[in-house]
Amino acid sequence: MYHFDSDYMEGAHPAILERMAAENFHKHDGYGCDGICDSARRRIREACGAPEAEIHLLSGGTQANATMIKALLRPFEGAVAADTGHINLHEAGSIEATGHKVLTLPHTDGKLSAEAVASYVDAFRTDGNRDHMVWPGMVYISQPTEYGTLYSLAELEALSRVCRDRALPLYMDGARLGYALAAPACDMTLRDVARLCDIFYIGGTKCGALLGEAVVIPRAGMIPHLFTTVKQQGALLAKGWVLGLQFDTLFTDGLYLDIARQALAAATRLAEGLAAAGYRFAFKPVTNQIFLRLDPGQLEKLSAHATFSPWERLDNGCEIVRMATSWATSMEEIEAFLEDLARR
Amino acid sequence: MYHFDSDYMEGAHPAILERMAAENFHKHDGYGCDGICDSARRRIREACGAPEAEIHLLSGGTQANATMIKALLRPFEGAVAADTGHINLHEAGSIEATGHKVLTLPHTDGKLSAEAVASYVDAFRTDGNRDHMVWPGMVYISQPTEYGTLYSLAELEALSRVCRDRALPLYMDGARLGYALAAPACDMTLRDVARLCDIFYIGGTKCGALLGEAVVIPRAGMIPHLFTTVKQQGALLAKGWVLGLQFDTLFTDGLYLDIARQALAAATRLAEGLAAAGYRFAFKPVTNQIFLRLDPGQLEKLSAHATFSPWERLDNGCEIVRMATSWATSMEEIEAFLEDLARR
Amino acid sequence: MYHFDSDYMEGAHPAILERMAAENFHKHDGYGCDGICDSARRRIREACGAPEAEIHLLSGGTQANATMIKALLRPFEGAVAADTGHINLHEAGSIEATGHKVLTLPHTDGKLSAEAVASYVDAFRTDGNRDHMVWPGMVYISQPTEYGTLYSLAELEALSRVCRDRALPLYMDGARLGYALAAPACDMTLRDVARLCDIFYIGGTKCGALLGEAVVIPRAGMIPHLFTTVKQQGALLAKGWVLGLQFDTLFTDGLYLDIARQALAAATRLAEGLAAAGYRFAFKPVTNQIFLRLDPGQLEKLSAHATFSPWERLDNGCEIVRMATSWATSMEEIEAFLEDLARR
Amino acid sequence: MYHFDSDYMEGAHPAILERMAAENFHKHDGYGCDGICDSARRRIREACGAPEAEIHLLSGGTQANATMIKALLRPFEGAVAADTGHINLHEAGSIEATGHKVLTLPHTDGKLSAEAVASYVDAFRTDGNRDHMVWPGMVYISQPTEYGTLYSLAELEALSRVCRDRALPLYMDGARLGYALAAPACDMTLRDVARLCDIFYIGGTKCGALLGEAVVIPRAGMIPHLFTTVKQQGALLAKGWVLGLQFDTLFTDGLYLDIARQALAAATRLAEGLAAAGYRFAFKPVTNQIFLRLDPGQLEKLSAHATFSPWERLDNGCEIVRMATSWATSMEEIEAFLEDLARR
Repeated sequence: MYHFDSDYMEGAHPAILERMAAENFHKHDGYGCDGICDSARRRIREACGAPEAEIHLLSGGTQANATMIKALLRPFEGAVAADTGHINLHEAGSIEATGHKVLTLPHTDGKLSAEAVASYVDAFRTDGNRDHMVWPGMVYISQPTEYGTLYSLAELEALSRVCRDRALPLYMDGARLGYALAAPACDMTLRDVARLCDIFYIGGTKCGALLGEAVVIPRAGMIPHLFTTVKQQGALLAKGWVLGLQFDTLFTDGLYLDIARQALAAATRLAEGLAAAGYRFAFKPVTNQIFLRLDPGQLEKLSAHATFSPWERLDNGCEIVRMATSWATSMEEIEAFLEDLARR
Repeated sequence: MYHFDSDYMEGAHPAILERMAAENFHKHDGYGCDGICDSARRRIREACGAPEAEIHLLSGGTQANATMIKALLRPFEGAVAADTGHINLHEAGSIEATGHKVLTLPHTDGKLSAEAVASYVDAFRTDGNRDHMVWPGMVYISQPTEYGTLYSLAELEALSRVCRDRALPLYMDGARLGYALAAPACDMTLRDVARLCDIFYIGGTKCGALLGEAVVIPRAGMIPHLFTTVKQQGALLAKGWVLGLQFDTLFTDGLYLDIARQALAAATRLAEGLAAAGYRFAFKPVTNQIFLRLDPGQLEKLSAHATFSPWERLDNGCEIVRMATSWATSMEEIEAFLEDLARR
Repeated sequence: MYHFDSDYMEGAHPAILERMAAENFHKHDGYGCDGICDSARRRIREACGAPEAEIHLLSGGTQANATMIKALLRPFEGAVAADTGHINLHEAGSIEATGHKVLTLPHTDGKLSAEAVASYVDAFRTDGNRDHMVWPGMVYISQPTEYGTLYSLAELEALSRVCRDRALPLYMDGARLGYALAAPACDMTLRDVARLCDIFYIGGTKCGALLGEAVVIPRAGMIPHLFTTVKQQGALLAKGWVLGLQFDTLFTDGLYLDIARQALAAATRLAEGLAAAGYRFAFKPVTNQIFLRLDPGQLEKLSAHATFSPWERLDNGCEIVRMATSWATSMEEIEAFLEDLARR
Repeated sequence: MYHFDSDYMEGAHPAILERMAAENFHKHDGYGCDGICDSARRRIREACGAPEAEIHLLSGGTQANATMIKALLRPFEGAVAADTGHINLHEAGSIEATGHKVLTLPHTDGKLSAEAVASYVDAFRTDGNRDHMVWPGMVYISQPTEYGTLYSLAELEALSRVCRDRALPLYMDGARLGYALAAPACDMTLRDVARLCDIFYIGGTKCGALLGEAVVIPRAGMIPHLFTTVKQQGALLAKGWVLGLQFDTLFTDGLYLDIARQALAAATRLAEGLAAAGYRFAFKPVTNQIFLRLDPGQLEKLSAHATFSPWERLDNGCEIVRMATSWATSMEEIEAFLEDLARR
């Protein structure tokens, strides 16, 4: 049996565990105010080409999203997102729990288009009833999206322009950012992300760390007293250096993108093999997540060889499922699975 | 110029103002703990055929909705509503401000169907990801709906059954309940509402009062310490008798429905006249709100004779607008307007 | 039996009811966007000497406090208040329900001193643990206080200076502001309040209106999109003109302070009579609320003649109770009560 | 220079890191639904003598407190705590951010007494104004307290009785529970805690883990759908097994208490040495935290040899500071420090 359920089944890149053992008995200041965290922040700033950036190291994606959106918005504002957005569907109402509405727009392949945002916001701002409605206060996107698809640089530039023209912060959920930036189909860099977004986070949990997401605010001080809001949300680790060490390691010598490339190569081979075996994709696979549209026979067969995640039941009896590779997936594993699948 | 912008442009039924003058210098206990409120509650219980009902008198609809939904739900739950529901669109995020998501389903003529609710809830409860999502915790409907349409008794019975089978409280927003119950097309009574809903409110503001909504909970004690939650939401009037007096008057000798009938007769005549003049309806008019689909020429002409509320701009250049009558609209006013419209 | 339970037992000044009857069938735009509200705002601006002030008309004090404090504070901030402050004790946790902590300081006769605020805030801002704590984000005071005492002009000036030096908005809860400003012992005017506070509200409910509090923000635009936040809190009346009419009337020809003077004269006579009869005060009475410290015998006797509000049970068996007069209390009523009390 | 700032300066017990390395490339189900977490839960249940207990593994103390208190309380309720309680002072308003007030009572050596709770709750429930106030909905205590002091078994039994008699859940913050239970002065066991509390958490972060707190609910199902509320609060780790592994290790062969004993022995020696050198304690030291009351000369001298945490500035120029040992503090370190201190 092979396991492609998700990209967070294994632990951390070995370099992280080695360093953790080395640092274990050194004494570090608490709450991220230590030298390792400082070093991690320096390396991330450099990788982002954002020397002034403010960086907060948090534990998980839902936590990062809720904390930052709460900190960004005023009471009368909500977050604009694709209806498929993770904050809208799969974070248990964490945004609403902070008092804010998720304002949804229809997605295209999991993405929000600049045009759709512009037209929604402009219509809102001239709507006679606008004062009785939740004001769009920011725009939330994910790169890659919840369907494993990618914004192109041109699309991100257009979104950024639309947002800045309307004074709306653009927020990118980068839970799998490594798997976007290292993808052959991706034409943007981390520097582009830092240049075009007002806040984003670099996912660690799914990209080589045990846990951890690095929130980057290129324009430091944009949100006052964010440390306190992070604490209030229960998002401040006492041993912050545990997060710092992971990002410091991942951002040394390009490790973050290197290990993402391995996941993408495995995903590419997996997709090729599945296509060759007659499987159809719900979305063209370009990152480490592959969404298959399976008929009942295919579902049964595939289930006999591997575990994966159910995604959506379709009316015609078919089902969309997700298979994911990670930095820890070996090419051997993929080949062995494909052979098995072919054999039986 | 005639004014059909809304049904809350005038004050209160004269009987209310008279009685207010008579009571003005009597001393009443505060916060709704007075004899007039007690009498109002008795009359409402009787009208509802719900002798045990708990009744809270609040000031407005958004306030009633947010207070009751907050009091009803646990943190992991949201309120299921039609996507056109007032709580979803036009209450400025008041539900989310209490920490809860509005879970929207597509509407049909502004209504939620029992089937749609059942199928959504049942699919949710068997969804493998359900624990990462907001649980449906209640169902919100409006009678009449935001488009002036009506649930039939059969539809409400079906919804009630679906909800009770699934242990989901059914909540009815009755901001214009009088204009529903007194409508010729309506086949349900207030007793049916009290029998089939777990919480509902009887709208006063739009149906003859200066302000006030009477929240009815047929099964008293369903929500513990609701008085305190009402206070916490800033929804407790010091001079509660001002609300009590209005409902006591409206529920004496059937006044509430009597004056609603007048509004409905005016609306019927208005709709007939408009139809005869070639205007088309976005929804078949059955209550006191008439939704017209106007082409640019019609919009210009109608605007020359009356004020009304813009509702939605359509892609084809047409616009949906709303005209409303109220208990204070006279038949003379309607006839005069129609004549004017015909003349020029 | 005489009733001194509170100052919100009667209705409205007769001039208000008369005008309401006159306006009842005129059509007014909704939500406070009508001519009467505009006129009320103009008159209040003039009385405040604040020609640019932004004014919102709300229904009650708890609602006004929660809405404004929520709108003012950022997530990491709390409201500094005396431990006896109404928002701390008697508003059912409405501030916390908006996500903010009430940061309490010990009171002196119900008041916060400028020194106490300065010393607390300065210590906080240099505390090494400050980032783990709730930041003071505004200062809340009541005039008169919950014990019927008064800030002097010098005290308010000192508080205002301390707050402005520290960029902390000063908020005054003026639920009974009329009974402060019209008091012989008061040395400040409404213009002083408008000059020294950043937000305050002028109480209507307890000072001549059926309901209504006028929130004044001398520096308009200080809080963006406040209308939407008011709506979100369920604090926006559809028939806003009902509030506008009351304030327009109260701020015509000085009615607001005139009727307060009547209440204060009654309270003065009541306090004199009680003192002469051997009753002792918990706080020197200077406004319309009189706090008595009663031994069991006095409590029994007084209870035989009048109703009043229990306030606090003391360890020695004594009890503090409150008697209140209002604009509707006649001097005859006071004299009759004092005679009765003397006779039996 | 020696460092006694806190008990969370080092990493994890070596056995944890070893096992993490061993498990790193095994695949585990996400979100705590894996075999290691199951094993950890089994061991904790056994150690608690609570075979039916429900256990949730969270990342930190503030997070655990806010999540559980939010899940426990209804809107009208608050959490009763000592005024020195961590949730009241040093969690950045996280409880209020969930909408609930912290109801404070004066502490005695950091503790709440059963009598104080009983008398407060009983007075509240008979207070005529109770419906306008926040209802006590649970009781929060810490063991050891924020001052390093301990509840005795008798005290906890009395508190538990008072709470159960009044249907108030008793919640224990056990961020340093190991340092309480292993203390010579402690007369209670983990089984007593599980028997007497309705919810508590076993601290990992400060007691041998990198991060992690194990919330124990002896009566499983007490809070419905807690998993979803945990997710909503951003408190659900994708790689939950990282937490499970740590608790599974700490609860194997009594490691949790064994390593705590080492910290306590070091603290005892440290306190003896300091007392012998003329230092005075603010509270009698019984756990791993030592609170010293230093005059300016002592402060200067101690600062020359060690780092520690400032706690409170006293009016007389003295200062209270905290020194903490941890499971990683060696006896050699203590002796060397004391020698140094004696020498210069």
